[in-house]
Formats: sequence, C-alpha cells, structure tokens
Amino acid sequence: MKSNLAPLAPKADQDTVRRHNLSLVLRAVHDEGEATRAGVAARVRLTRAAVSSLVEQLLEGGFVTESGKTSSGQAGRPGTVLKPARTGVAGVGVEINVDYTTVCVVDLAGTDRVRLTEHLDNRGAPPAEVLARAARLTSRALDSAGQQELRPAGVTLALPGLVAGGTVRQAPNLGWNGVPADTLFARELAKCSEAPPVAVGSENEANLAALAELWFGAPGEARTFLYLSGEIGVGGALVLNGELLRGAHGFAGEIGHVPVDPAGPECRCGARGCLERYAGQSALLSGGGIDEGAGAAGVAELERRARAGDERALTALGTAGRMLGRVLAGAVNLLDPQTVVLGGVYRALAPWLTPPAEAELASRVVSGLWPRGSGRLRPSSPSGDAARGAAALVVEAVLDDPAGWAQA
Amino acid sequence: MKSNLAPLAPKADQDTVRRHNLSLVLRAVHDEGEATRAGVAARVRLTRAAVSSLVEQLLEGGFVTESGKTSSGQAGRPGTVLKPARTGVAGVGVEINVDYTTVCVVDLAGTDRVRLTEHLDNRGAPPAEVLARAARLTSRALDSAGQQELRPAGVTLALPGLVAGGTVRQAPNLGWNGVPADTLFARELAKCSEAPPVAVGSENEANLAALAELWFGAPGEARTFLYLSGEIGVGGALVLNGELLRGAHGFAGEIGHVPVDPAGPECRCGARGCLERYAGQSALLSGGGIDEGAGAAGVAELERRARAGDERALTALGTAGRMLGRVLAGAVNLLDPQTVVLGGVYRALAPWLTPPAEAELASRVVSGLWPRGSGRLRPSSPSGDAARGAAALVVEAVLDDPAGWAQA
Repeated sequence: MKSNLAPLAPKADQDTVRRHNLSLVLRAVHDEGEATRAGVAARVRLTRAAVSSLVEQLLEGGFVTESGKTSSGQAGRPGTVLKPARTGVAGVGVEINVDYTTVCVVDLAGTDRVRLTEHLDNRGAPPAEVLARAARLTSRALDSAGQQELRPAGVTLALPGLVAGGTVRQAPNLGWNGVPADTLFARELAKCSEAPPVAVGSENEANLAALAELWFGAPGEARTFLYLSGEIGVGGALVLNGELLRGAHGFAGEIGHVPVDPAGPECRCGARGCLERYAGQSALLSGGGIDEGAGAAGVAELERRARAGDERALTALGTAGRMLGRVLAGAVNLLDPQTVVLGGVYRALAPWLTPPAEAELASRVVSGLWPRGSGRLRPSSPSGDAARGAAALVVEAVLDDPAGWAQA
Repeated sequence: MKSNLAPLAPKADQDTVRRHNLSLVLRAVHDEGEATRAGVAARVRLTRAAVSSLVEQLLEGGFVTESGKTSSGQAGRPGTVLKPARTGVAGVGVEINVDYTTVCVVDLAGTDRVRLTEHLDNRGAPPAEVLARAARLTSRALDSAGQQELRPAGVTLALPGLVAGGTVRQAPNLGWNGVPADTLFARELAKCSEAPPVAVGSENEANLAALAELWFGAPGEARTFLYLSGEIGVGGALVLNGELLRGAHGFAGEIGHVPVDPAGPECRCGARGCLERYAGQSALLSGGGIDEGAGAAGVAELERRARAGDERALTALGTAGRMLGRVLAGAVNLLDPQTVVLGGVYRALAPWLTPPAEAELASRVVSGLWPRGSGRLRPSSPSGDAARGAAALVVEAVLDDPAGWAQA
C-alpha cells in the first residue's frame, strides 16, 4: 500500500497552544450560551487556574462579558456567569441573489443584530454596479451596527454561482463570469463607508444557507444532509458529519444542473434539461401563471393561489415536486443522507412540493430506504439563510482564533 | 449558534498512548516499505529510544522483520532495515459477486499472496449455499496461506448490495434480502477449515474496490474520486480526501440506481429506468449480441468484437457510455470530484465507454469544468479490486492496533 498520510502537523509551540486554548474557552462559552469558569474548565479539561487566566484575556479582548455575583455577595470569580459579548467584533454577511440583496450583521453569539433587504433585479446591471449597490446597503448596515457598538471582523459575500478564491467563476442567473467579487466589493465599500477596511471573502449561497441550517436549525437535527436552495437558480450543498463538502474545486452541490431530461429545454448553464428549468423559481412562477419577474411577491402569490386550490398553481408545484423528487432520489442513492432540507423559496412551498417529491423518493430510493412519511424531507429552519450563514462564517473565524481579533 | 461539538475524547492513558505509538511505528514501516529506526523516529517524531523499544515489540509480535547490517559490520540497531513481515498476520478478502467468487489473501505489506477465483452463477443458489461454496474456496486459500506461514487476522466479505452490520439488506442482482452473511459464512468456514475461527465482516463490493484503488492505485492519484464498479450491477463509491463516504446508513454510492429515464424499463431494485438497465454488464452483453449469462468470457468477447469494429458491439458500448456520462455529469455537478474511476468490467471496456461519456460530461458539467481530454475519467488501476480491498481492510485494522493482534 502506498503512503497516503497527510503531512505531519508542525510542533505546537507555546503561543500556538495558548491561542488554541483561548479558542477552546471562547467556544465553550459560545456553545453553552452562558457558562461559569468551573463549567468551562470541566468542558475543556483545563485547570481552573488556566481557564481563569484565559477568561481574563477574553474579557479584556471584549469577547465575553460576565454578569451575576455569587450568592455570597462577593464579586467572586468562580460563580459569575460568562456570556458571549453582545458588543465588539461581529460578522457581516451580504447575500447578493438574483432578485434581492440582504445584509446581515451577527454578534459573537450568532444573533441577528442588523438585517437589511433590498428587492431589486440584479440581472439588469453590470457586476461592478451590483456590487456597488450591495456595498452601499452594507455601509448602512454597518452604521446601524456601529450604533450598537458592533465592529465588523469581516464580510462574507454569498453568491448564487461557482465561487472560488474570491472570484465568481460563473453565476449563470446573474450573467456573471470571472468576476473578482471580493476585490470589487471591498473597493466599493471603502468608497462609501467610513469604517476601517475589513477582510472580504465570498462563498456559494447554498453552501452558506446549509451552514446556517447546521448552526441555527433545530437542535438535534441531522448533521449529514443535502440542502436545496430554491431561488431563481436551484443551489445545493452537502453537509457530511457537520462539515461542508466543497469538492475538488470548491464547486460541489450544483444540484440545479443535474440533468432531468437530456433532451429538455436549454438552461442558462449551457446544458439541456437541468433541474432548474423544471423546479427553479421562474419555472414555478410561469407554470403557475405568474410573471416570472415578480420575485418574492410572485412566490407569495403562488403560495396564496396554492392555498386557495388554484389548479395552475397546484399543477406547477406538482411538476416541480416530482422533478425535485426524481433528482433527489438519485442524490439519495448516491449519498445516503439522513435528511434533505428544502430552503429558499422551497421552504414556504414545501406543503405542496413535499408530497410529489416523497412519492418519487419512495419509489426510486433503493431498498425502500426512503419510506413515505419518514419526515426526512423537510423545510429549512426559518432562522437560517445564506446571509446569516455568511455572517456566522466570519464569527466562526473569530471563534477559531480570538487572539487574532482582539481589540486594538 | 447551538453546540455542534463532537464529544470530547477520553483522556488517553499510558497504555492507549503506547498502543497508538506502536501503530504509528508500524504504519511508518508499512508506508515506506522499508525504513531504518532513525527514519521512523524522524517521521513519527518520537525519540530514537522510544522507537527502538516499540520496534522491539513489533519484531517480537512478528509484524516487522529486520535485515541488512550496518556497513561497519556491527549487528547494530540503527542501520538495519525494517520491513513489514511477509509471514504472520494477514488479511483475507472474499468477493462474492453475481457470476464469480474471488478469495484473496494479502500480507502486512498489502501484497497479494494467494488468489483463487471461481466463475459460477451465484444467482441460482440460496444464499446459504453460495456462502458455503465461498467458505470452501476460502478454506483452500487459507491452506495455501498457511503453507506460506500466513495466518488470517480476519475475513472481509465483499458483496454487491446494501450491506450494514454484517447483514446484506438487499442485493437485487443476487436476489438476496436480509441475509446475515457474516454469521452464515463464519459457520460454514468453521465446518470446512481447521484454522482457528476468525472475525468476519462484510462491506459493499464497490466500496472495497474504491479503497483498493486508493491504496494500490498509481501514486499521486486523486484522493477525492467517484468510483464506478461495472459488474452485473453498477456499484459506486465515493472517496473524499482519502476517506470512504458511507452515508447515514452505510448505503452511499448506489449510482447504479440513479434514474436515467423515469419511464424506462423496470429494474431489479423495483424502480424504473435505473442506470444499471442501460450500462450494466447484462445490458452491454445483450446489446452487443452476446448471451447475457456469458459472464467474464462474454465481456472478453465484447471487447474482442469492439476491437474488431463490430457495429453492434460499438453501438452497445456507445449507448452505455452516453448513459454513464449523463449520470456522471449529475454526480460531478453534485460532488465536484477530482477524478471518476471506471472499475470492474468497465476497466477493459474504457476505450469505448470513455469518449461518449466524456462528451456528455463536457456538455453537462457546469461552467466547462470537465473539458474533454482532461484525463479525469480514467480506468481503474489493474492492481486493485474488491477482493484485495476487502483483504486490505483487515490489514488496516491490524495496522491501527497491532497490539491487539500480537502472536499468542
């Protein structure tokens, strides 16, 4: 057998160990929501003295706050309660989708503190202009954040396309090809914001929505799931044991371009008969007799009509659900996930999409492994979306190495 | 954000550390093929003294051998060369496929030391009888292994179906449902072999073939790949960063049952239009005008006819290649693997399957990420198959904890 070992990790020096332990302690407080020093020490398996010293650094850095005195009335350390700070470093997420842009600022606890959404068609304008508009929206969000004493540790852009190394290789529904989104956005933000410059990264929107589902979804939910993000495009993401699968080039999850009918209608991606052409937002709206360009209002209208029993709406949803189910059956046979999560516009439309999709899954997944009514095809949590996932990704970076983000 | 931390690892006690280090040293010798104590110490970052003591235990346990004296003529320790033992513990793999059974014994270096194959139709007989025949073949292989002073540490059965917890939940092409293969095989082996009883495990054949590709394929090959195993059924497996993806129930990889045409012919799995019906061995043979039941000889005949330019053979291969490409395009969009490996009967037929499959990939994978001629769709290595992967899985268990397998 040939060697397939990963390279050995470098020897940890003392500073690395201290930074690592600082992260451990901050994560313990973060994950518990509130904790005592003793509780943290038990969880991270460090001595009480070591934890107290690390907590001191986290308090100084503004990452945690303490409240509550011990019952003895002393301002004693062991009994006070530590919480993630509600001020100080924060994460910023900016979702630029086809027909809306959302900016979201979350604090160290992961709480949404600012949220601004602009409904507008981003297809009509050149990428630089779209990014400039998004930067202006972000600048307004940063003002609100500043008033709440939050300062951005970084910005993550959530984009509906293939994103790697800060560049959007292709976002067919935006019409973007090879757009250096990070750089353009940072430049625009510098023009309209007085805040000090921050790092800008970018990531596929479905990946970030899936991470938001993982982080903010109901406790006890599956950690191995396939996430579908229904928008103008149909994005997808795979979370395996709590880790996002990025693939060899960072482009995994493009379920919208799995072929449904090889001879079907042409797709914006260049191929034919992709799932997106049958189950994307535009197909749903036009199938339901609603203007394709009606955006979120159109989706709400489709939902209203379905609820009222409108036949065209129900047929469009039935077809989309069947096509979703067909593609999902293949994906489930390939990946054997615990659950499949329907996000984006699919969340509100799940009551009508789920039954036909479940029927396809029940008849096509091998060995009866997906019986109807299993509850394993479910709508996404209302608390997670790509913008929040994007902001939380920044917070994750802070939690991973708080020493790198301490207040100047 | 809610807590998604894995449970903390138990504190390692001294015995655990020693066993772990023993494994590290054995793996170092195994991965290098041959190594000096000094080389091992540098690689595993332990002191020379610690390594020498661990090597002593491995020599006593019969896991490594040493040869070669230092040039100074001393029987000195530091300069002698350590190698994995060619005698002692070995792994046994038994692939029970639809039209053949193969038993393979590999030593600690991963070398094939015994290999027996019986071509016969396993569909005709009840599972217990098939397993009894396989046990008899295994017993003969164990005799040969014994003559080479190899003793089995365990047996892994490779089976063409959904396997979990020692039971074949479903193997449609064998006609097996809910067969406790481990137990039945162990009982039959005890009847016909005088060797002491060994642990028996089982696993999907495509998973094991993919592991064999990972372990025995050309050095420098991708560690993230999709493996297709073309047999009577079409099996699949996903290796991500050198790890097999098993899925939530251990059933990931069933690419043979991804729907190609939802209204297509019925498949043995109960669904319609599965890939297997278009690109499995039976479809290839009958499409090429050869008796479906002709097995390996039939595949050789198909290859011969294709090479001779026979039109029916070329058409059958062209259709299968296109269908493979279509399903692979969906899988590549979803998973973004570095390569796709064609194993089983597809290996020999790759010259004819690859061009039409590449054409589908080139036109259907998003963003031109799979240009023709990329070489990313390639035949499997001739040195790996499911039986060898099954045997090597046992060797892996020994390498993970040699202390558990020391000579009595």
